[in-house]
Amino acid sequence: MQPKSNIVHLPVYQPGKPVEDVKRELGLSEVIKLASNENPFGCSEQAKAAIVNEVTNIYPDGAAVDLTNALADYLGVQSNQIVFGAGSSEIILMAARAFFVPGDETIMADETFAQYKHNAKVENATIIEVPLKDGKHDLPAMLAKVTDRTKIIWVCNPNNPTGTIVGREELVQFLDQVPEHVLVVLDEAYCEFLDNPDFPDGIELLPNYRNLLVLRTFSKIYGLAALRIGYGVGHPDVIRYINQVREPFNTSRAAQAAAKAAVADQAFIDFCRTENNKGIAYLSEQFDRLGLSYFPAHGNFIMVDTGLPSPQVFDALLRKGVIVRPGWACYPTYIRVSIGKEEENRKFLNAFEQVLQEAAVHG
Amino acid sequence: MQPKSNIVHLPVYQPGKPVEDVKRELGLSEVIKLASNENPFGCSEQAKAAIVNEVTNIYPDGAAVDLTNALADYLGVQSNQIVFGAGSSEIILMAARAFFVPGDETIMADETFAQYKHNAKVENATIIEVPLKDGKHDLPAMLAKVTDRTKIIWVCNPNNPTGTIVGREELVQFLDQVPEHVLVVLDEAYCEFLDNPDFPDGIELLPNYRNLLVLRTFSKIYGLAALRIGYGVGHPDVIRYINQVREPFNTSRAAQAAAKAAVADQAFIDFCRTENNKGIAYLSEQFDRLGLSYFPAHGNFIMVDTGLPSPQVFDALLRKGVIVRPGWACYPTYIRVSIGKEEENRKFLNAFEQVLQEAAVHG
Repeated sequence: MQPKSNIVHLPVYQPGKPVEDVKRELGLSEVIKLASNENPFGCSEQAKAAIVNEVTNIYPDGAAVDLTNALADYLGVQSNQIVFGAGSSEIILMAARAFFVPGDETIMADETFAQYKHNAKVENATIIEVPLKDGKHDLPAMLAKVTDRTKIIWVCNPNNPTGTIVGREELVQFLDQVPEHVLVVLDEAYCEFLDNPDFPDGIELLPNYRNLLVLRTFSKIYGLAALRIGYGVGHPDVIRYINQVREPFNTSRAAQAAAKAAVADQAFIDFCRTENNKGIAYLSEQFDRLGLSYFPAHGNFIMVDTGLPSPQVFDALLRKGVIVRPGWACYPTYIRVSIGKEEENRKFLNAFEQVLQEAAVHG
Repeated sequence: MQPKSNIVHLPVYQPGKPVEDVKRELGLSEVIKLASNENPFGCSEQAKAAIVNEVTNIYPDGAAVDLTNALADYLGVQSNQIVFGAGSSEIILMAARAFFVPGDETIMADETFAQYKHNAKVENATIIEVPLKDGKHDLPAMLAKVTDRTKIIWVCNPNNPTGTIVGREELVQFLDQVPEHVLVVLDEAYCEFLDNPDFPDGIELLPNYRNLLVLRTFSKIYGLAALRIGYGVGHPDVIRYINQVREPFNTSRAAQAAAKAAVADQAFIDFCRTENNKGIAYLSEQFDRLGLSYFPAHGNFIMVDTGLPSPQVFDALLRKGVIVRPGWACYPTYIRVSIGKEEENRKFLNAFEQVLQEAAVHG
């Protein structure tokens, strides 16, 4: 009874410590979590209200017809261009499962969202990682790696964990040169946080590129991470292939109802975007004052060079009641901090400044 | 941009018509759905209450630690023997994805739950279907099909759609003879409806068979189909392999909380089992009175030979406001009816008797 040989050594996801455990173990009365890029303002009240009637014994609509139609209207696409997943992570999984055969090549940045690599490994694809350039996708270098065996190129925009973006012109130039046999998965999980005119809207580009699949999620600015719902938008053929490997009832009734209500409440999204921009501006200024390097932040997180081993900074911050994300192989001295509410950002900054001072004294 | 060649012709799930659409299109004020084996009594009130606080911006616990520990206690297994999915369907998907390489063989009954075949096809495994015998799994015939390339045998107990069971002695004899290189997936989605002493509890058999994976769900007797949560129980090695291909956050906070509360409320489950047994007894008696054959029903559904083409019976019942399940290739004159509440069972029976009489007059 042997599994596929290529999965045996894959890591199993290890969950982070819950806030309650951290409080108990460290004797802290207050702990703030700025580690998973969640929306500190939660979700639309309309989304909360929408799920009350959805706890039922009845299966969800597997095709999510109501939600699909509402979202297609909002995005200006056809209904057969959308597929839903339990988070956009499940779309990544399904794209990998639908497209890869063993030996196919796939190109991605190093560092970027870990699920591209994980799912490509599960499907026994050959991983080709292209280093980021100043924390940014190096699209010409990625393009240079394309061969006849290339099946998928993954572009995370803004990139997680660095928060950098690829601009419209460079993305269009890249897409114009990618051969038609290659699917480009453009992961825009954080796109709703941006109001930068140079940021390309993947969905506007879809009419020009049959081989483009745009990923978005309700887990970030929409604040519905708990319910697990995200989506892919692309050519109807690509969407059909993904549906062919989709578990028939992969999203819950509650998630579908909440997502539909959340899309309708764009005032909440506008509010979250404004607050997030203030948080980015504040932390950027403070890092400047402290003389620290950081990548230009375009999502709801910022990646800063602490000058110290990041696990050490993580531990020291944890003891002060702030959970951040350390441990990026290419960036051993960087931490990634999610943008919180104004007070949380200030608390993080104070704790961080203390950690740096203590290290300077003892170092 | 080509997907895996083996998925191109797979069917995409086509959802059944919602009750509201049927009402509107046929001008009916009342429609009952006895088509998807849902629990007509819904779910535990405690499960409903548990989800109220779970609509949050915070990601679920990907490892579902609380729920895993509670369920392990209830089942009398270790925590590392359990993995959760968005319904047991996702466990089927993950087992297929973790174990199959192209060319592996897999053995299943014909007819049985369609997701075994679908997921084996996605992974390009060779499907070997063994006809049911009097609606029952023919375990000796399935065993005779085992080769060195056999990777998974699927046993659905009770079987969907026929509702028949494999008894303890024949299952143990079978498991004793299955070679160790073959994983047996024992799908017990409906097991909680049974109080038959001859029905084998797969979890009690686990200590004897390292190559046994038991599937269960919260979608059936627990009434949580809307929330998408099911589980697999097996040897820690098998569970680890499945976790290695699992999407990190594959179940929602709401589903985890509801499932934990639902397990704690066994009084509700006892009530549902008793009512379901009454419904089976009632419909069996009525089919006897009408001189119709049916398979001995052990889940929360019953499969009856109408003597007419099943799509014709389906349509005629739909016009009378009752939705059932027709269209099984091996059983072209059978319909599958979910057990409803007492009143629903009576309404179905009355409508069904009218349909049969009308067909006799016009036939």
